[in-house]
Amino acid sequence: MNKNTQIPISKTFHFPVQIYYEDTDFSGVVYHPNFLKYFERAREHVISADNLKKLWDQHSLGFAVYKTEMTCQEGVEFADVIDVRTHFYIESKFRTVWLQEIWRPNGLKPAVTAKIEMISMNKDRQLMQMPNMLIEQFNQLIL
Amino acid sequence: MNKNTQIPISKTFHFPVQIYYEDTDFSGVVYHPNFLKYFERAREHVISADNLKKLWDQHSLGFAVYKTEMTCQEGVEFADVIDVRTHFYIESKFRTVWLQEIWRPNGLKPAVTAKIEMISMNKDRQLMQMPNMLIEQFNQLIL
Amino acid sequence: MNKNTQIPISKTFHFPVQIYYEDTDFSGVVYHPNFLKYFERAREHVISADNLKKLWDQHSLGFAVYKTEMTCQEGVEFADVIDVRTHFYIESKFRTVWLQEIWRPNGLKPAVTAKIEMISMNKDRQLMQMPNMLIEQFNQLIL
Amino acid sequence: MNKNTQIPISKTFHFPVQIYYEDTDFSGVVYHPNFLKYFERAREHVISADNLKKLWDQHSLGFAVYKTEMTCQEGVEFADVIDVRTHFYIESKFRTVWLQEIWRPNGLKPAVTAKIEMISMNKDRQLMQMPNMLIEQFNQLIL
Repeated sequence: MNKNTQIPISKTFHFPVQIYYEDTDFSGVVYHPNFLKYFERAREHVISADNLKKLWDQHSLGFAVYKTEMTCQEGVEFADVIDVRTHFYIESKFRTVWLQEIWRPNGLKPAVTAKIEMISMNKDRQLMQMPNMLIEQFNQLIL
Repeated sequence: MNKNTQIPISKTFHFPVQIYYEDTDFSGVVYHPNFLKYFERAREHVISADNLKKLWDQHSLGFAVYKTEMTCQEGVEFADVIDVRTHFYIESKFRTVWLQEIWRPNGLKPAVTAKIEMISMNKDRQLMQMPNMLIEQFNQLIL
Repeated sequence: MNKNTQIPISKTFHFPVQIYYEDTDFSGVVYHPNFLKYFERAREHVISADNLKKLWDQHSLGFAVYKTEMTCQEGVEFADVIDVRTHFYIESKFRTVWLQEIWRPNGLKPAVTAKIEMISMNKDRQLMQMPNMLIEQFNQLIL
Repeated sequence: MNKNTQIPISKTFHFPVQIYYEDTDFSGVVYHPNFLKYFERAREHVISADNLKKLWDQHSLGFAVYKTEMTCQEGVEFADVIDVRTHFYIESKFRTVWLQEIWRPNGLKPAVTAKIEMISMNKDRQLMQMPNMLIEQFNQLIL
């Protein structure tokens, strides 16, 4: 994905999510806003929850979702263990872009695809540059 | 409810909740932890969200659920508009007890009943007395 | 919004949503996937939950979110009562497009904007034309 | 736990849950209804999601929560990886009782304890005996 861009992009991260009762609705499949939850869990694993906590507690820096585009091609069912695949790139000192997909077991194409733009902000929700240390960490993950 | 106690108890508050897709799971009825959400929404309306916000911002006081007992007698379905009925009493300067029920449209008995004990604490999650002003407000609501 | 299209578009629907504890996360504002919930609640009120239930039970027809684009410009806080504003148009017998916004109290611009494409499908998640009766109902709502 | 009963009780199952943004509210800790979600995830892992799906699809049997008692002793925080500990016993052919606890990393006592009674029912929500095969499976897990 994102093959046409010149911006260097990270390797692919894989994150499994099991689908429980809580994830479905009475139509029998996953309730669509929950996909945004799984994408966020996967991003938290790329950055690491401990890092996120440290950035918040020590640097007063948090990430906020600025834009999401999501396409749902196929329903995801109870008891599925999905594979959330994540790529990302750094767009600026304030902004990262995440290309994420949900694959069902034995799926031939992604069930859900998304592009999610994150911005970094302080606790008063003002834009705030990511610290260099974080950008270096991100760069370690980029091909 | 709670007819045997000598402790004065509030009047009954009614709060309607419409059941949406998000509330159900693939078994076709409301996913049970959501009942605790509706009970909390109803409690927030008794106290008022503005009061809760003021208590948090100005007094650093919040409420935490300490104990819940809940019995689910009947499934609640998509598109139902339920009536959440709430009574409460003050047990101490730290603790209020809430007796709450969920009634389906045309129900002959409650679909769900609960007893929920709330404690008041500061932002560091230490027990903290409710301010007298709040206790007086609560007493206004008690028969 | 959508001023350039020639496709007739519905009037604006307003739907209030109060923000409770359950809606926020530890950053202090609404957790972003919840916005998709509020948009769906608002769409359910345009169509009516009873109609949705009838379409499902009698016509085996449901709606699924196919695409969402959402931009979050501003955080939404605990105790806010937001105004969810909804327009929609019919793109085909299978597809409706919903333009939705979230306005905070006294907001000068929307806090969140979204474009959401819905498709109609049967219980086996195969595309299924909306019945004429439904399209006529929708047309009643269109200017 | 449950040391005084003569009813044979299962071994202890351990299930880890990582706490994400979605789990917390603006007070900074886990929103209490979510504990019931974690307890259910843990129960689903004891029974196995595949078994649950098979029971539903082939035997039309599901489990419903009938009663919950929960005590929240301590707040659980973002980035915690909690240990959900689960015991259960069979009370009748219709009913199982689950004793569950949440332990924080390095916790000296459980942060949350619960007793949850489940009943088995068919798709019309009528009581239905658990099949012998399932009871035998449960008995395999009991000391």
